[in-house]
Amino acid sequence: MSLLSGWAAQHGIPDDATLAARFLEARGRVAAAAHRTPVVTSRTLDARLGARVFFKCENFQRMGAFKFRGAFNLISQLPPEALRRGVVAYSSGNHAQAVALVARELGAPAVIVMPSHAPAAKLAGTRGYGAEVMHYDLLGEGREALAGRIAEERGMTLVPPFDHPDILLGQGTAAAELIEDAGSLDLLLTPLGGGGLLSGSAVAARILAPSCRVVGVEPAAGDDGARSFRSGRLETVDAPDTLCDGARTPSLSSLTLGLIRRNVGEVVTCTDDEVLVAMRWLWERLKLVVEPTGALGLAALLAGRVDGRGRRIGVVLSGGNVDLGALAARLAATPNL
Amino acid sequence: MSLLSGWAAQHGIPDDATLAARFLEARGRVAAAAHRTPVVTSRTLDARLGARVFFKCENFQRMGAFKFRGAFNLISQLPPEALRRGVVAYSSGNHAQAVALVARELGAPAVIVMPSHAPAAKLAGTRGYGAEVMHYDLLGEGREALAGRIAEERGMTLVPPFDHPDILLGQGTAAAELIEDAGSLDLLLTPLGGGGLLSGSAVAARILAPSCRVVGVEPAAGDDGARSFRSGRLETVDAPDTLCDGARTPSLSSLTLGLIRRNVGEVVTCTDDEVLVAMRWLWERLKLVVEPTGALGLAALLAGRVDGRGRRIGVVLSGGNVDLGALAARLAATPNL
Repeated sequence: MSLLSGWAAQHGIPDDATLAARFLEARGRVAAAAHRTPVVTSRTLDARLGARVFFKCENFQRMGAFKFRGAFNLISQLPPEALRRGVVAYSSGNHAQAVALVARELGAPAVIVMPSHAPAAKLAGTRGYGAEVMHYDLLGEGREALAGRIAEERGMTLVPPFDHPDILLGQGTAAAELIEDAGSLDLLLTPLGGGGLLSGSAVAARILAPSCRVVGVEPAAGDDGARSFRSGRLETVDAPDTLCDGARTPSLSSLTLGLIRRNVGEVVTCTDDEVLVAMRWLWERLKLVVEPTGALGLAALLAGRVDGRGRRIGVVLSGGNVDLGALAARLAATPNL
Repeated sequence: MSLLSGWAAQHGIPDDATLAARFLEARGRVAAAAHRTPVVTSRTLDARLGARVFFKCENFQRMGAFKFRGAFNLISQLPPEALRRGVVAYSSGNHAQAVALVARELGAPAVIVMPSHAPAAKLAGTRGYGAEVMHYDLLGEGREALAGRIAEERGMTLVPPFDHPDILLGQGTAAAELIEDAGSLDLLLTPLGGGGLLSGSAVAARILAPSCRVVGVEPAAGDDGARSFRSGRLETVDAPDTLCDGARTPSLSSLTLGLIRRNVGEVVTCTDDEVLVAMRWLWERLKLVVEPTGALGLAALLAGRVDGRGRRIGVVLSGGNVDLGALAARLAATPNL
């Protein structure tokens, strides 16, 4: 296999064996801190699809999403002096809460850069984990620039949301647990935003289930990943209009795109209406609260974007952080499957 | 201990040792067919309450509620000839789906008597399990009378929703699993409708955790159980106006009231608004879809109806069968905890 591209030298990963070793280290490190989330199945769904589907419930992960894994894998490797100075991240979503929670657990200060219009619940959640929240102005200095400036001024470590090997290998540990619990898989579906979860899951599958085809699922309104996958260049969709707030990232990075092009079989897209049908089914039938991005994998199966007939299929339900106030009415208006 | 009252002779349970043996038989029988549902905890909640809370997730039980347990415990003991003739039940809720599913699994025909105005989703769910649905007329023959007539005419066995030792002992197996998984408990909270779950849980606690105080929680609008508990007589509230559809039963039975008076420490009540706060917290923080009745135990803790400080508390989340279309708007309008 050839998992690597130009980033190998930069990150001290000269060959596949080193990458595999580094992934297995991440696996052990994350297992000590993260919840081992359950894998659930549904006979009704299996009968409908003519397949065997295994859901990995990362909505039950700490802070409610898989993002805890990558943040823990990176931050827990920092030397004591760097931990003392702290970490900084820019995010208005699950990555912010992940960095804040991991920093608190490891005794590190954390600064999270968020838009001033971020939902009150997310601001409160991030502050609740003890992080300092700083606002950036959409018209002034950008969030990456502000985060970089804080990192430099305070000697803090920047924790990127996906563009780092320790982040993506950490995210991939969810897929590793899923493969261990479900047994051999023919297909593995994960949501695709910046590509950390998808590329890390693909590394896990290459190591633990080499014949498993890995598929990324993206909201149709933000199909930068699908287009980048086809063209091989970093395509961009700014501020896509989709309910899937975890997949609004404008583009992949060259690191994640390289891994995805080499190790992923296909990237497909789903509409928001298809995502709502999947969410409603997960809520009503499996009693699982899953956020829109987390329902992308099931949406792709239900909408026939991926043919799963006769297959053993893993689906990562990536998170459960939903703003009920904003979403309940749309969900209630969504027809039952 | 003295679990027994006048019904002992009727049901072939002459003493406590016989009752304990019959409960342990139910435990093994139900374990072979029901899901062993998970027990989940929340550090945030524990910090807030100054207690340790263990939630038993019967929302993940087969057909979405604990009712599978009692129905299986009774129906699986029927002799082959009775199974061949089939079973009949009257219910518009979880008991209907439980009897229908168990009957299908055991190859028995099932007739479910439901009101003609039952929600389409519940009718479809019950028929989906292969049961024949018969409607009764609110102004004509009552549902018990109709079910009794069908049982007689077709030689079918009537499966009552709570008023039978095999039903309530089956329901108590959830509490037994909770006590095994959580370790010793000081308090155990279950919803109270007809009293099958509460009385069965109390029997389980008396056998497995004799010092555990068992508390029933009832919707305030239908406080027949709380009043019966105090007066010792069967008090009635017809068609109480509450969201807790699983606890609208007009009264306990003398069987369940007798067991509850002997083995339960207290019955408390909660308003629908308090239930909605608990439901929203369970959905948003634990990612668990729980129906209104299922949230009664947590509602009692959050509203201070039961003082849990310093205690190890088991809470049975009894089911997750929610009509999202009907409830989403109210849930979205409920303030966050």
